[in-house]
Amino acid sequence: MNDMDFKKLAEQYRNELLEGVIPFWLSNSIDTECGGYFSCLEKDGSVFDTDKFIWLQGRQVWMLSMLYNRVEKRREWLDAAVHGAEFLKKYGHDGRLNWYFSLDRNGAPLVEPYNVFSYTFATMAFGQLSLATGNAEYADIARRTFDIVISKRENPKGKWNKLHPGTRDLKNFALPMILCNLALEIEHLLPDGYLEPFAEECIHEIMDVFRRPEAGGIIVENINLDNSLSDSFEGRVVNPGHAIEAMWFVMDLAERFGRRDVIDKAVETTLRMVEYGWDREHGGIFYFMDRLGHPLQQLEWDQKLWWVHVETLISLLNGYRLTGSKECLEWFERIHDYTWSHFKDNEYPEWFGYLTREGKPLLTLKGGKWKGCFHVPRGLYRCWKILDELS
Amino acid sequence: MNDMDFKKLAEQYRNELLEGVIPFWLSNSIDTECGGYFSCLEKDGSVFDTDKFIWLQGRQVWMLSMLYNRVEKRREWLDAAVHGAEFLKKYGHDGRLNWYFSLDRNGAPLVEPYNVFSYTFATMAFGQLSLATGNAEYADIARRTFDIVISKRENPKGKWNKLHPGTRDLKNFALPMILCNLALEIEHLLPDGYLEPFAEECIHEIMDVFRRPEAGGIIVENINLDNSLSDSFEGRVVNPGHAIEAMWFVMDLAERFGRRDVIDKAVETTLRMVEYGWDREHGGIFYFMDRLGHPLQQLEWDQKLWWVHVETLISLLNGYRLTGSKECLEWFERIHDYTWSHFKDNEYPEWFGYLTREGKPLLTLKGGKWKGCFHVPRGLYRCWKILDELS
Repeated sequence: MNDMDFKKLAEQYRNELLEGVIPFWLSNSIDTECGGYFSCLEKDGSVFDTDKFIWLQGRQVWMLSMLYNRVEKRREWLDAAVHGAEFLKKYGHDGRLNWYFSLDRNGAPLVEPYNVFSYTFATMAFGQLSLATGNAEYADIARRTFDIVISKRENPKGKWNKLHPGTRDLKNFALPMILCNLALEIEHLLPDGYLEPFAEECIHEIMDVFRRPEAGGIIVENINLDNSLSDSFEGRVVNPGHAIEAMWFVMDLAERFGRRDVIDKAVETTLRMVEYGWDREHGGIFYFMDRLGHPLQQLEWDQKLWWVHVETLISLLNGYRLTGSKECLEWFERIHDYTWSHFKDNEYPEWFGYLTREGKPLLTLKGGKWKGCFHVPRGLYRCWKILDELS
Repeated sequence: MNDMDFKKLAEQYRNELLEGVIPFWLSNSIDTECGGYFSCLEKDGSVFDTDKFIWLQGRQVWMLSMLYNRVEKRREWLDAAVHGAEFLKKYGHDGRLNWYFSLDRNGAPLVEPYNVFSYTFATMAFGQLSLATGNAEYADIARRTFDIVISKRENPKGKWNKLHPGTRDLKNFALPMILCNLALEIEHLLPDGYLEPFAEECIHEIMDVFRRPEAGGIIVENINLDNSLSDSFEGRVVNPGHAIEAMWFVMDLAERFGRRDVIDKAVETTLRMVEYGWDREHGGIFYFMDRLGHPLQQLEWDQKLWWVHVETLISLLNGYRLTGSKECLEWFERIHDYTWSHFKDNEYPEWFGYLTREGKPLLTLKGGKWKGCFHVPRGLYRCWKILDELS
């Protein structure tokens, strides 16, 4: 532990990103015929399905633009980002920036704009690309889509909401969590003075409302509108990866506004959730848990997912950077070992996404409906940069 | 194999039903305070959640009424069936027989009537109970709900349908499959001459449209409206248990109308699907498969579910009864051994519902959102009766 070689580790994360993962997506995901990206890639990179999911189209545009903005002005990254953005601009929405959930290969809409996260990832994509290009149209798309997201906060699913109003109205953790990240992402597009009170509100919602001291300091996924806990399937479910990911979003905001108290609480909560979610029998972090220990609805509850582990690496390492917490570093080493030895495919680039509880690949895919050019490269980038700073 | 003791086996199935499973539900599921049934029961029968799911409320009414009608005129079965039906009648629908998906414990609607199978199970419930009671109101509810199901055939999800029309319009196997069973269930309520052409149509749809000789005789879950195969996640997915369950529905209809050719085809398809779905490594039948062998969207694809195995027992045993197929009997013995040794809980009554690929309980529940007083007791009843006939 004490002899952890940050410099060597930084190089490991950097090389995996720039020599493995990003080249994998650039070689295999660009649809030169119809535009946009393929995201359903087998272990060797071959395309097994051509549907285009807006979450993943947007996230890949964001990823490539971010690398261009922060790592190096590589033309091929920018070209590939614009390639995806132009497809999104043309086919991704209904003409009024209502973003579909998915399209077929040609861009014809498959699933209606029921999902607010299609909007949030479109905002991230066009926000980051507008920084790279200075293109005012991209900036405008990001800003206007962000406004729609804000207008949907009360009822994100709109007319597709199947919940009968009035019986058990819950609020969900995912949107305030994503907004923490999104607000910083598009700070350059927001009016002066907008970000700080907005961030304050998001941090409050996450740290004081969804984080529950009476439940041992864990974060729950759904609560009643009056901020009380709900004893229902939705109200009992805990998603450790979600909570841990939110903690680095919160740390970023807290660092931006010099909130040491919030940083400390976010680091404490990261450690709490990692301990809570860790599978003592087989290693890795569970996907879903029930805070009262009851059986879950999610049949995939015991699986080990790539994004959970990648996000945990970021939060732990960032927590160590910000506070020097020895526990963060110890847990980072443990999760690092688990992640690299279980998710990385030693035959082809990119990582497996879905492991069984025991840590064996459950699916052979490198990309699919939910896994794209996002969590792995974003996590590699963030860890590389933090390790670089530490070394 | 040749010395299979049908009489002893019949007794095993009968005892498990009448001395284990049904008493478990009668002791643990009746909500004497608020009406209806609890379905979320832990391994020892304790209630861990009080939400009421219309599928399971309806199925339990059906199950208890059916036992009353066909096994024995036990007052406690009828009382418990009426107890559930009165709750359903009062709270289960919006006043115009639009059946909600779920209610809270008191009967307040939680999830809107987006799901057509809430209607089909309400039809089964009130149809079977009307036979038991001669109650005209129950018969009327069944008949009118059936009419609504028929009117929803083209777009079962109605306004909650998230699919954008016109891009990839698929038809799904589940509704024609359930209709096969439902039509026979409520034959006593249908006009003279209705059933035979209706059954003919359902059988045609299942055996000639969703069954695909060019894909090796398997049944797929979704096809294009022009009856061609779709190379998409939805169009590639195969659900062996679904297909196998449908085969005994088809056998029932074919027997009713003396269609020997259809029986033979259903038996052949049962065997094909059991072989296709069987996990050669760990035993048991997979939950989902991809007909082209691609990665699936369903993370639970490799799990072993109670209903899949129970339905398979019925189809194989019924296939043997109808055709004398030796293969059916051999497979029945194999599935019987797997099912009883993996799903049955030796500590408390009723069976586990969800096993890992390796055959260990994934959840400890005996009932939940999808598992209720239905597949296990229905399967035990059917196998008992067939074994009785064979012995």
